[in-house]
Amino acid sequence: MQQDVITMVHGSGGSATSELINEIFASEFRNDTLDQMEDSAVVTGGGRIAITTDSFVVTPPEFKGGDIGRLCICGTVNDLLMRGAVPKYITCGFILEEGVKIDLLKRIVHSMAETAREAGVQIVAGDTKVVNGDGEFYINTAGVGIVSDNVDIKAANACDGDVIIVSGTMGDHHAAILSERMEIDTNVTSDNAPLVEMVRNLLIENIKVHTLRDITRGGLGTVMKELATASGKTFYVKDEDIPVKQVVRDFCGLLGLDPMYMGNEGKLIAIVDREDADRALEVIKNSKYGQDAAIIGEVKEDAPGQVILKTKIGGKRSLDILQGEGLPRIC
Amino acid sequence: MQQDVITMVHGSGGSATSELINEIFASEFRNDTLDQMEDSAVVTGGGRIAITTDSFVVTPPEFKGGDIGRLCICGTVNDLLMRGAVPKYITCGFILEEGVKIDLLKRIVHSMAETAREAGVQIVAGDTKVVNGDGEFYINTAGVGIVSDNVDIKAANACDGDVIIVSGTMGDHHAAILSERMEIDTNVTSDNAPLVEMVRNLLIENIKVHTLRDITRGGLGTVMKELATASGKTFYVKDEDIPVKQVVRDFCGLLGLDPMYMGNEGKLIAIVDREDADRALEVIKNSKYGQDAAIIGEVKEDAPGQVILKTKIGGKRSLDILQGEGLPRIC
Repeated sequence: MQQDVITMVHGSGGSATSELINEIFASEFRNDTLDQMEDSAVVTGGGRIAITTDSFVVTPPEFKGGDIGRLCICGTVNDLLMRGAVPKYITCGFILEEGVKIDLLKRIVHSMAETAREAGVQIVAGDTKVVNGDGEFYINTAGVGIVSDNVDIKAANACDGDVIIVSGTMGDHHAAILSERMEIDTNVTSDNAPLVEMVRNLLIENIKVHTLRDITRGGLGTVMKELATASGKTFYVKDEDIPVKQVVRDFCGLLGLDPMYMGNEGKLIAIVDREDADRALEVIKNSKYGQDAAIIGEVKEDAPGQVILKTKIGGKRSLDILQGEGLPRIC
Repeated sequence: MQQDVITMVHGSGGSATSELINEIFASEFRNDTLDQMEDSAVVTGGGRIAITTDSFVVTPPEFKGGDIGRLCICGTVNDLLMRGAVPKYITCGFILEEGVKIDLLKRIVHSMAETAREAGVQIVAGDTKVVNGDGEFYINTAGVGIVSDNVDIKAANACDGDVIIVSGTMGDHHAAILSERMEIDTNVTSDNAPLVEMVRNLLIENIKVHTLRDITRGGLGTVMKELATASGKTFYVKDEDIPVKQVVRDFCGLLGLDPMYMGNEGKLIAIVDREDADRALEVIKNSKYGQDAAIIGEVKEDAPGQVILKTKIGGKRSLDILQGEGLPRIC
């Protein structure tokens, strides 16, 4: 590319678009399917497939521990995993404002390619548009995975007596983004990670997993309330059992934030059959990105749709989904 | 929704996001799969699947003959069709700037739902993000279709002797968008349309279709050059055989535009076996949105990768892909 920044001509669909695609995207993402440059990719499917999509608008696009490129692959891969699918194919759509720096774009695209390799997915289709503006950009990813016949993981499957596990510490991504924006040097790094190995291990070990959900925008509180509502069950969790890194806890204390409503990008909540709970915890702890996993509570059915948080001093409070603004553009 | 416009709180992932999703999107798009509100949709797949994605940034979002909602469904459905797939599932990601009018969003979402019904596809997953700005919005759609075992349609399959057909008049969408922006009342309407019936009929009638491509951004000239390059063949076309509506021709004359490089959103180019050419033309003409179809040329192999346009007065010129800016934000 001769230019340093994106201009409207890169969105023409003509020779400049072609140059952008070839030099920035194709060189990093190349594989036999994508190289065909067809209107759509034809790939091997399966009897049941999982499909998902997410757009990523995080600011800043690079942050401690990750970037929007790693984030967009992780987010989509994790959404597929939460249904017990094996993530296979990713599409990506770039919306670039005029003025995006080519160097930054190259780093992000490289990070996407690396993360896709780590997660074992192929990027099989893409699209680029250029709009007016001042150098921001957005990435949409969609994903397709294959679901084995015997897998049935969904919110409605949570049962009375099930045990609730989280795969690690809460709030890391949120705290990392916020400290970048506030230019505070906190040593908090984003947890953005693909949970492929963790979910694969749970399935291989035949853990009776009823529900999985990745804990992103809205945080653990929002996710639990959504799951309790969808299943018509009651979630009881103990505040002191919810893992939070000390550095994140300190950061939250300083700013009056509640880790319960802070987003992560590489953590899941697993609702598993009680008899498998200890084994599930062990499997997660022994998986990549799962070393801080913990059992945080249990599922009952005495108050359908409620999430009850037991506090350290013996109180109880009912959690709702996140109210109000939250942190804008966290993912 | 109590508000008239989108604000940052709609992107929080909390209660306002939930309200936006339920009142605007879920009510229009609802189906059993989407209603589950899971991280990804699990649906019936197939042995071979086609996958594609596109982002839509067209301005203005509503124009004569269509809108960004109809456009995004048509674009993605058509990309799947171009590989001979039966379009099945659509995901949509909305990136909304603050200030988007809720009424406009409702009309667009309604148009998406209607077009999805016309095309026979289900919207199975979605995502919404809110960013700073002044009321523009972008939609990304990804699509999945099922490809029958015996179907093999791609650019590389174009053969010496094949016949080149276009399914209708060139430049309609481009001219419609441009006249909206220039506030000229031209009576040109966009051709945005899903070509489901047309491609289905070609497959049912066992027409030997070697290549299909929808003629969008960059226009017929760019598409032909891409196909000639990918197949290593020579495309000979006659200028006078390329259908262009008189009103579009007049509009182009006035502005010095070349219909050969103007985008459409409901037209395809089909490269078919010579012995099936007349029958293919008939099938397309009898399909919805195909009444103006025409045979425009033939495929040879004397000048690999070249597109040769024969002009009315007997001249010849070699076509390249679109150079320069084109019309920004046409789709």
